[in-house]
Amino acid sequence: MRVEVMKNVLGSNATAAESNRSFWNQHGMLALDLMGSPGSGKTSILEQLVRELTGRGRSMRVIEGDVASDNDARRIEAAGAEAFQINTGGACHLHAAMVARALQQLDLAGVEIILIENVGNLVCPTAFKLGAHFRIVVASVPEGDDKPEKYPVAFRDADVIILNKTDLLPHLAFDADHFWDLAEQLNSSAPQFNISCTTGEGIEALCNFVDSELAKLTHG
Amino acid sequence: MRVEVMKNVLGSNATAAESNRSFWNQHGMLALDLMGSPGSGKTSILEQLVRELTGRGRSMRVIEGDVASDNDARRIEAAGAEAFQINTGGACHLHAAMVARALQQLDLAGVEIILIENVGNLVCPTAFKLGAHFRIVVASVPEGDDKPEKYPVAFRDADVIILNKTDLLPHLAFDADHFWDLAEQLNSSAPQFNISCTTGEGIEALCNFVDSELAKLTHG
Repeated sequence: MRVEVMKNVLGSNATAAESNRSFWNQHGMLALDLMGSPGSGKTSILEQLVRELTGRGRSMRVIEGDVASDNDARRIEAAGAEAFQINTGGACHLHAAMVARALQQLDLAGVEIILIENVGNLVCPTAFKLGAHFRIVVASVPEGDDKPEKYPVAFRDADVIILNKTDLLPHLAFDADHFWDLAEQLNSSAPQFNISCTTGEGIEALCNFVDSELAKLTHG
Repeated sequence: MRVEVMKNVLGSNATAAESNRSFWNQHGMLALDLMGSPGSGKTSILEQLVRELTGRGRSMRVIEGDVASDNDARRIEAAGAEAFQINTGGACHLHAAMVARALQQLDLAGVEIILIENVGNLVCPTAFKLGAHFRIVVASVPEGDDKPEKYPVAFRDADVIILNKTDLLPHLAFDADHFWDLAEQLNSSAPQFNISCTTGEGIEALCNFVDSELAKLTHG
């Protein structure tokens, strides 16, 4: 019984995710879905992307998923992009229908990029794709270098892997080679980015990646 | 249908949690359940507790919950306590029946303290109590000072609140007063500990708390 219900939930989520993807493809919008632990720095990365991509003339909207509070949407709007806050009210991940409802309420005229921040959680969001072109997993240096081994599904299914807060490497016992070795054992195809929102390391490279994927989507 | 199934799951978990609590009370064992984000430092705190409490002549066992890997159980055994690793194989939290099965497989002769590390997740474990006398929520400085506001249930329901990695305060923009204000708005009764497993700050105070709660349990 429990399994059957779960299958139905996953099945209807997959349908909603496909519908989101079709919508984005039809309108030439590139969608990215960031997942990671609470405090891994997802919002900080989005703030940097919003500033840098806006500077390059890109138009974007941000969908923020949290159990509670609109802290993140306010941070994103201060960085310069319109944001839509979803409060899941307890649910541990976004599902595709929540994103579809957010899309209906946003003004999407001229928008090229949709950035989605999932609920802070390295486990549950893995089972609920949202239809985004890229699922980006964000790990951060203070979490420790064994995270790929302990949360393998998140890393195995990722389309992009980010190691964030690299500015803290001098202060912590974190073996970056070990982290990336473990990540590669699970996923050798996902592009990898070392990021620091404090020093700006990797932000330009990440924006170049987004720009080039947007070009492929719209001209490819 | 989905709600009903969920209620059944929660109901059977509550029964198993009560049974765990009765078992521990009957045998004079104090049980602690640590929950927190991936990388918040739950295992490091347990390593410190194991060393310090063993030094005080206490006997304990540690139950480690992870989606995958036995990294944490190996760390605990190196610190000096027998550990039992539960791999949930995808599940985002421990449930009480998993803990009951672990208890059956551990040699509990003379054991006074059961330490349980839940799966790294600030959301899902809140709904599944394990029967422990104290649910301890662990937040860490690099996660940011707004975590109580964003994950309110974890803080509201906690019996003890730990702020870990205080040694990183000089390197990060983290307002400890703001963090504790938010935590107190949700929960004014839970004892609070500032901990650093690097400098040892707060470890003695936490062990004193455990010792005194154990004395209350066994001597009434």
